Amino acid sequence: MPPRTPIPLIKVDVKKAPWEQNQKPHNRWHPDIPPVAEAKAGDLFRVETIDWTGGQIKDDDSAEDVKHVDLSRCHYLSGPIRIVDDQGIPAQPGDLLVVELCNLGPLPGDEWGYTGTFDRDNGGGFLTDHFPEATKAIWYFDGIYASSRHIPGVRFAGLIHPGLIGTAPSHELLKIWNDRERALVEGGEGSTTLGGVLHTRPLALLPEPKGALLGGVPTDTPDWARVSGEAARTIPGRENGGNCDIKNLSRGCRVYFPVFVEGANLSMGDMHFSQGDGEVSFCGAIEMSGFLDLKCEIIRGGMEQYLTPMGPTKLHVHPIFEIGPLEPRYSEWLVFEGISVDETGRQHYLDASVAYKRAVLNAIDYLAKFGYTKQQVYLLLSCCPCEGRISGIVDVPNAVATLAIPVAIFDQDVRPKPGGPPVGPRLLRRGDVAKATYEGSKTLTINACMCGGGH
Amino acid sequence: MPPRTPIPLIKVDVKKAPWEQNQKPHNRWHPDIPPVAEAKAGDLFRVETIDWTGGQIKDDDSAEDVKHVDLSRCHYLSGPIRIVDDQGIPAQPGDLLVVELCNLGPLPGDEWGYTGTFDRDNGGGFLTDHFPEATKAIWYFDGIYASSRHIPGVRFAGLIHPGLIGTAPSHELLKIWNDRERALVEGGEGSTTLGGVLHTRPLALLPEPKGALLGGVPTDTPDWARVSGEAARTIPGRENGGNCDIKNLSRGCRVYFPVFVEGANLSMGDMHFSQGDGEVSFCGAIEMSGFLDLKCEIIRGGMEQYLTPMGPTKLHVHPIFEIGPLEPRYSEWLVFEGISVDETGRQHYLDASVAYKRAVLNAIDYLAKFGYTKQQVYLLLSCCPCEGRISGIVDVPNAVATLAIPVAIFDQDVRPKPGGPPVGPRLLRRGDVAKATYEGSKTLTINACMCGGGH
Amino acid sequence: MPPRTPIPLIKVDVKKAPWEQNQKPHNRWHPDIPPVAEAKAGDLFRVETIDWTGGQIKDDDSAEDVKHVDLSRCHYLSGPIRIVDDQGIPAQPGDLLVVELCNLGPLPGDEWGYTGTFDRDNGGGFLTDHFPEATKAIWYFDGIYASSRHIPGVRFAGLIHPGLIGTAPSHELLKIWNDRERALVEGGEGSTTLGGVLHTRPLALLPEPKGALLGGVPTDTPDWARVSGEAARTIPGRENGGNCDIKNLSRGCRVYFPVFVEGANLSMGDMHFSQGDGEVSFCGAIEMSGFLDLKCEIIRGGMEQYLTPMGPTKLHVHPIFEIGPLEPRYSEWLVFEGISVDETGRQHYLDASVAYKRAVLNAIDYLAKFGYTKQQVYLLLSCCPCEGRISGIVDVPNAVATLAIPVAIFDQDVRPKPGGPPVGPRLLRRGDVAKATYEGSKTLTINACMCGGGH
Amino acid sequence: MPPRTPIPLIKVDVKKAPWEQNQKPHNRWHPDIPPVAEAKAGDLFRVETIDWTGGQIKDDDSAEDVKHVDLSRCHYLSGPIRIVDDQGIPAQPGDLLVVELCNLGPLPGDEWGYTGTFDRDNGGGFLTDHFPEATKAIWYFDGIYASSRHIPGVRFAGLIHPGLIGTAPSHELLKIWNDRERALVEGGEGSTTLGGVLHTRPLALLPEPKGALLGGVPTDTPDWARVSGEAARTIPGRENGGNCDIKNLSRGCRVYFPVFVEGANLSMGDMHFSQGDGEVSFCGAIEMSGFLDLKCEIIRGGMEQYLTPMGPTKLHVHPIFEIGPLEPRYSEWLVFEGISVDETGRQHYLDASVAYKRAVLNAIDYLAKFGYTKQQVYLLLSCCPCEGRISGIVDVPNAVATLAIPVAIFDQDVRPKPGGPPVGPRLLRRGDVAKATYEGSKTLTINACMCGGGH
Repeated sequence: MPPRTPIPLIKVDVKKAPWEQNQKPHNRWHPDIPPVAEAKAGDLFRVETIDWTGGQIKDDDSAEDVKHVDLSRCHYLSGPIRIVDDQGIPAQPGDLLVVELCNLGPLPGDEWGYTGTFDRDNGGGFLTDHFPEATKAIWYFDGIYASSRHIPGVRFAGLIHPGLIGTAPSHELLKIWNDRERALVEGGEGSTTLGGVLHTRPLALLPEPKGALLGGVPTDTPDWARVSGEAARTIPGRENGGNCDIKNLSRGCRVYFPVFVEGANLSMGDMHFSQGDGEVSFCGAIEMSGFLDLKCEIIRGGMEQYLTPMGPTKLHVHPIFEIGPLEPRYSEWLVFEGISVDETGRQHYLDASVAYKRAVLNAIDYLAKFGYTKQQVYLLLSCCPCEGRISGIVDVPNAVATLAIPVAIFDQDVRPKPGGPPVGPRLLRRGDVAKATYEGSKTLTINACMCGGGH
Repeated sequence: MPPRTPIPLIKVDVKKAPWEQNQKPHNRWHPDIPPVAEAKAGDLFRVETIDWTGGQIKDDDSAEDVKHVDLSRCHYLSGPIRIVDDQGIPAQPGDLLVVELCNLGPLPGDEWGYTGTFDRDNGGGFLTDHFPEATKAIWYFDGIYASSRHIPGVRFAGLIHPGLIGTAPSHELLKIWNDRERALVEGGEGSTTLGGVLHTRPLALLPEPKGALLGGVPTDTPDWARVSGEAARTIPGRENGGNCDIKNLSRGCRVYFPVFVEGANLSMGDMHFSQGDGEVSFCGAIEMSGFLDLKCEIIRGGMEQYLTPMGPTKLHVHPIFEIGPLEPRYSEWLVFEGISVDETGRQHYLDASVAYKRAVLNAIDYLAKFGYTKQQVYLLLSCCPCEGRISGIVDVPNAVATLAIPVAIFDQDVRPKPGGPPVGPRLLRRGDVAKATYEGSKTLTINACMCGGGH
Repeated sequence: MPPRTPIPLIKVDVKKAPWEQNQKPHNRWHPDIPPVAEAKAGDLFRVETIDWTGGQIKDDDSAEDVKHVDLSRCHYLSGPIRIVDDQGIPAQPGDLLVVELCNLGPLPGDEWGYTGTFDRDNGGGFLTDHFPEATKAIWYFDGIYASSRHIPGVRFAGLIHPGLIGTAPSHELLKIWNDRERALVEGGEGSTTLGGVLHTRPLALLPEPKGALLGGVPTDTPDWARVSGEAARTIPGRENGGNCDIKNLSRGCRVYFPVFVEGANLSMGDMHFSQGDGEVSFCGAIEMSGFLDLKCEIIRGGMEQYLTPMGPTKLHVHPIFEIGPLEPRYSEWLVFEGISVDETGRQHYLDASVAYKRAVLNAIDYLAKFGYTKQQVYLLLSCCPCEGRISGIVDVPNAVATLAIPVAIFDQDVRPKPGGPPVGPRLLRRGDVAKATYEGSKTLTINACMCGGGH
Repeated sequence: MPPRTPIPLIKVDVKKAPWEQNQKPHNRWHPDIPPVAEAKAGDLFRVETIDWTGGQIKDDDSAEDVKHVDLSRCHYLSGPIRIVDDQGIPAQPGDLLVVELCNLGPLPGDEWGYTGTFDRDNGGGFLTDHFPEATKAIWYFDGIYASSRHIPGVRFAGLIHPGLIGTAPSHELLKIWNDRERALVEGGEGSTTLGGVLHTRPLALLPEPKGALLGGVPTDTPDWARVSGEAARTIPGRENGGNCDIKNLSRGCRVYFPVFVEGANLSMGDMHFSQGDGEVSFCGAIEMSGFLDLKCEIIRGGMEQYLTPMGPTKLHVHPIFEIGPLEPRYSEWLVFEGISVDETGRQHYLDASVAYKRAVLNAIDYLAKFGYTKQQVYLLLSCCPCEGRISGIVDVPNAVATLAIPVAIFDQDVRPKPGGPPVGPRLLRRGDVAKATYEGSKTLTINACMCGGGH
């Protein structure tokens, strides 16, 4: 008989700094970061993770910690975990690693999370040209539900998931990443149309030894210097999965990862209690520490059988996954549309990112009529279970994106009605998120049309 | 007591050409196209529509009709319908027009549809650089279900909706449209990053008298010449709704449209039996003739109360809508991921369109392992109830998009399994779509990695 | 190529009496009623039906028609339809007949329905001892939605289904039915515990030539006399399906019927726009005329392969079915419990019928606090998409039944809240159903506890 | 700021016997059992519970423990918990106690459960006349999923809930319970029609000092003797909630309980990892130890405002509840029908219990064709998330009940198909549950029709 209780494979202590953990986490991707644990196919094992900033953000009412966050030290991942089959033979490059997310949750005793927007000059976010200041909201969990003293009047069931989970890249894949991202940075903002409208900085984050934590790579060695200089940053999702921030990787989900190195070297972290599609505020899910109960299988040769590469090499693949049966059920949705015309009125060509930005801006302005500040709505749309869809992608020149929001999460009816939105005593003011001042010099995207409405 | 049966407001005869219909349709947007009918708030009325090409595509096994389609003559819209309140006072600019889609369906006696991809030099599509040839699949309807002799082995419940529904633009709004789209065209392909990777041509479709049908505007008059020279083309969704191709505008949905001209002048057409998010093949839904049973309300002043403009003028707004209770229910989904790295391996910056293209390409290659041709899967993903999500839009430099496909639409289990996809006698070949030859000279995007697999 | 449009197999004219229809319906079950039409496996065909009372109930504001309805003339069924395979060989006893309900709807031009309760002395209903008078509510359809001038403030999406659909019994099965139902009637009310608490009369309806309509059986012949004297009444569901009043037999459903006679002889009628589990008021769904688009298959020998008989003969089987993908989606439910203790406080043993009666009574009293009369709620629970569950059936001596009601069908929030239900000006009175007087002498079940509340 | 982590209100040690727990549980209902803990409205607190038999059933492969279980010692409840408002004023009779089930789960380290059928002479079950022997299946939990070595080939997501939760009865209510249940027992089996077909013994369980555990009532005192002689057994659900075995009381649910005594005195236990509607095998859910995270509110006077009594006294009420948003989602269901004709062919009058028994028997025989033993299916239907509906309750003389089973829980397609169920090498045998011998003398209900098939 197998053990009935998940094997405690990786444990963390949220009272300690990341580098003080017994099984040291890592915050870069590199094939030479050695496994900290091993799991056998079929085992049910538990992995604990610290929150993605390693404790930089506090449960208080100031956003100064968000404003001054050190983003070179983030995404502390638990792992790598070497996966072997029941004969002890490790997963091999070309295999498919099936990871079943059997259960997930906050760490017992640490049941809280935060949502924030970064300062425009230190991280930014999807709408940072509209909302340049750092903000923060704290969420507490009543079991399955989240609510916030900073955004009263909303409550929703969590869709707990790891923002970041993936296998280790091979040396070859790592080089592909670094080369293509360097090319983007070197091209500069002007080389990408979106550089002008999605004002998140910088274009990409290249390898950076400062702030690197490399798990079991011995510090103060030539190896550490080499690995830290080569290792990929963790911000974007890539061929190995990684920071995909897919909210549907929740309870009961099965993910099929390509294997690039012997043992697969699975790592994970950045647990989210809930997130909206797009995670628009960047620090945008309900970020928390947490645990995952996992079960792995190896499909030998499955990467080549199932994942057709699309690109210059055999490594240009993506994970696939199956959605689990326990997503929260909402049946009534209010949906906002956006087309690929930006806030200055300029026409973009089939640009779903611009269209989605418009849909999100529309939703913020709409919901702000119901007693919320725009910053509250921005954070809410970043972390509540809203759905972002690419509705039309072929009708030149406009892409159409939609943002669907479940109306049941509000304690009032937010649908349009004759008579207009609540005014006077019917309008219940709702406090505000914690805010820090933006002291940079970048220009705000002013909505010329809005009379009397500020941010 | 109100009448119990929908008032037959606009009728069509699918055996006649568009210009021979009694209530002549229109295929351009212009405020001076006069209403062909009037409806009172609260009335339940029926609008019939011809298919979007006005009968150019036939129920046969050749794709020549798709290849040679005349796209200057398309989107034949039923309307405009002037909406008045129960006092007979028309909707006014600044009002919100609530349109409830009480029921929709194919026209009795004409229960079939088609899905196609256009030739790369005559319309193109989302993946036209991969699939440059015109193709076609014919669908028959067994009540709620669609199936196709060209794509055997799949069957799904329709999510019937109008691809195109909207209110008439004012003169001011029309000018905004024409100006911004002309600027895009004049900028040329090089002015947009996506021009290089989304090879649909042209960048935008500017006003064009050829092929114009203008409803009640008297032909051979100076008015006709003026209107046809100014009127906007119908391909893109815009501030008035229009060709948004949102599959969720289905039974029971309520849409809130801004009103730009007196009477609102509501028009609609391009009925779809089903569509996937993105409608990737462009002629991509299951296109059909059809009917809509509608009920309208006017929220006086509601456009200003509820829709905050975002852009240079008060007209830069978007419709919003509520999803109805009758969408087909599927609980098991296989999901494909894509990041914003294109097929050449080039890194794009937070580009959800590129990411979605990758997700769709990944899904096509995957499903083609189960006995389908890639063209069959391309058409299937365009018209089955699949969901396209913007999962991550802030993790520089990669946007992450996902495409979720309900597994229950297949007559085989398409999930990954040990042993790999079916081979030998287990692999059931599935015929093919109708195809025409691509005779143009544009380059195919070759997948360098694919060994032995052609298109 | 098969025809694209459903074959019009059986048509009705709602302006004519049942016996004046071209393809005469039948309102009894008998193997000797000859088929009126034939359908081939794989064909998509349309069957029209008149409403179950054959036009006895009118769209007006009086319940006298319900009070005086002639229940010996009801359940006018369209059919029998003889089903053959593609070789023309009919279905045989022992086969399984697969009937796919591809689409259903009201008859065009006749889009209305009614819900009623019968007089206690002429039909009764589940709660007839509480509500002895005849009542009626008229429903109009806005496409997928139903609403009633007699029960304002509620609106819901229909779950259209045939209350009655089944195959013809063989002579042997017919005799089994008649024997066991006669034994029940002869045992008398005292022979069944439930006789004392479920006051619907009579215990069963035995064969009755009066009112019989026998399709193609020639009238005024010895055959007619014989058949009308033997033919089973249509009220109960039985081994052949029949009047099961299962609301989930809706769009997209597949039903597997046992075949008892050559050709299967499928009949159907009693179309419902919507119904709650249990159809508690008896005339309780939204009753209407309607159409069904069907597709049949024959599984040769499937009755014996799949349906194990449970009882004295091989004929003691039941149909099974698969639920379709288009049931209305509601995510928030208020649920009422009931245990098997009756209104006098008497304990019954594991009696789910008594428990369900209590749950329904509890729901009626609860919802009546929100401005409805109890008769309105009784009718509403009979026809809205509420779910009746057998929650616990083993915890002696109490069965537990639950009744779940979707809260989104109301235009107010009906959940419990601090402060209690609305009173004074917050309480919106809601008119009433049409009522007739009960003039019989049976005793009302008085709720001794209720102070000031009458029915 | 409130504490972020649930207050650990009641803790258990599963290695100790029930009477050795620090906060002694109780297994009877009585107003004089004193509270073991107090909780304030608004607090989030955790209650741990031992399994319902207090450890009598073991994780092994023998059913002897089930056969010889002592049912006088069962339903060990954690509580009573006295509920006070934020002023410290306790809930009062006539109030409504709102209990939100914020989270539930197995106890960490004890993640397993069992499903069994009792011996016909020691507990029985819904089908004990068909399956008289004790059986057992052990379930392990992979996070949200349950699977069993005794029923291979099925796996499903749990719908965790307390089988038993309720408020304490007042003296008056307790007397009502004892009187009516005693009257049933004294009437004898012949006094209830169902006595003849639902062969669970005895008719009811009257107060019994043997085996009683009374929490804080001092043992060996006159009080103990009095209370144990009066206290109600816990098997049935009643006016206070109690052992309702409602599977939908799961995560996120809100239950509204009547308050009968000062402080409400809330107790709970009998945690289930999953259960089917009806819990047909009696020991039929997946029984386990577990925890509940709860939050309470008091609606002052709410019992009288919202719960209309129906019966001789003001105490004849039932709880109501709202379903939570996290029920597992299944979209494809195979449904079995049953009518109120018993296995001997005898007609019962509108008897939903008999109809449901037929539906369950039909489902067992059907699924047994796919390689399972009937005992495996019986246990499976008792604990998987199947839905039992009262479909028709007015069509004299037949009630119609349905049992809907999600097809996705099986690793094979169990729907009917041409060619019949699997035979020969296609049929995969599936082991069996643990079984004990029935040594009693009661008659088995033999299915005369079944040739060669035994149980």
